[in-house]
Amino acid sequence: MIGRLNHVAIATRDVAAASAIYRGALGAEVSEPQDLPEHGVRVVFVVLDNTKVELLEPIGEGSPIAPFLEKNPAGGLHHVCYEVSDIRLAAERLRQDGARVLGDGEPKIGAHGKPVLFVHPKDVGGVLTELEEV
Amino acid sequence: MIGRLNHVAIATRDVAAASAIYRGALGAEVSEPQDLPEHGVRVVFVVLDNTKVELLEPIGEGSPIAPFLEKNPAGGLHHVCYEVSDIRLAAERLRQDGARVLGDGEPKIGAHGKPVLFVHPKDVGGVLTELEEV
Repeated sequence: MIGRLNHVAIATRDVAAASAIYRGALGAEVSEPQDLPEHGVRVVFVVLDNTKVELLEPIGEGSPIAPFLEKNPAGGLHHVCYEVSDIRLAAERLRQDGARVLGDGEPKIGAHGKPVLFVHPKDVGGVLTELEEV
Repeated sequence: MIGRLNHVAIATRDVAAASAIYRGALGAEVSEPQDLPEHGVRVVFVVLDNTKVELLEPIGEGSPIAPFLEKNPAGGLHHVCYEVSDIRLAAERLRQDGARVLGDGEPKIGAHGKPVLFVHPKDVGGVLTELEEV
């Protein structure tokens, strides 16, 4: 079912500082910051040859990554996102296998404007796992 | 400098149970477990279209992932690994940028038989970061 790794998401308090590390010490191509207020994050893309890393900084009130940064003040690996061809079929398969989809269990429109869902970390070995329809 | 994302590593207490989730609910291709006693881990590869996920279970005494699982008993995202073409050049660039290479600062032969180094998480936004020469 899952195809490509769409992205790895890293939470940070400061995407500008994180960008400097990825551009500098790691010599990567890094995009300009982009604010997604409806998702509560400022995002920067680290462009790799086969996938991308998303650096996420919380913005506004109630950002979904704020609780993670309270527990992990230095930042860290937040979630992984895999691509699927049919998000409703994916949700159904997860339910049949006893894995919980976060929220009301229905896919939503994600930060990239595509249908996504998040699987409960407790049902995927402690890893917050996003599926995105492409 | 960094090219492809070589893998995302996930630590778990039980690769067999984790494999069942990736094969079942996520419908992925998962390899048979492989023991790497000299690296203190049992590893399973989740094969994706563009990269791979490594599920790591500690084996033996003093496994390098044991402390992580003490802090995160449910398992979780452990590290990411990027490919570089010249590991010594990479180590030099990191040093010049003030990022610390773990251990004695020199590349070692990693679990895939290739030269690797790990950058101190505090110098990469809280993320344990491996570089592998390919």
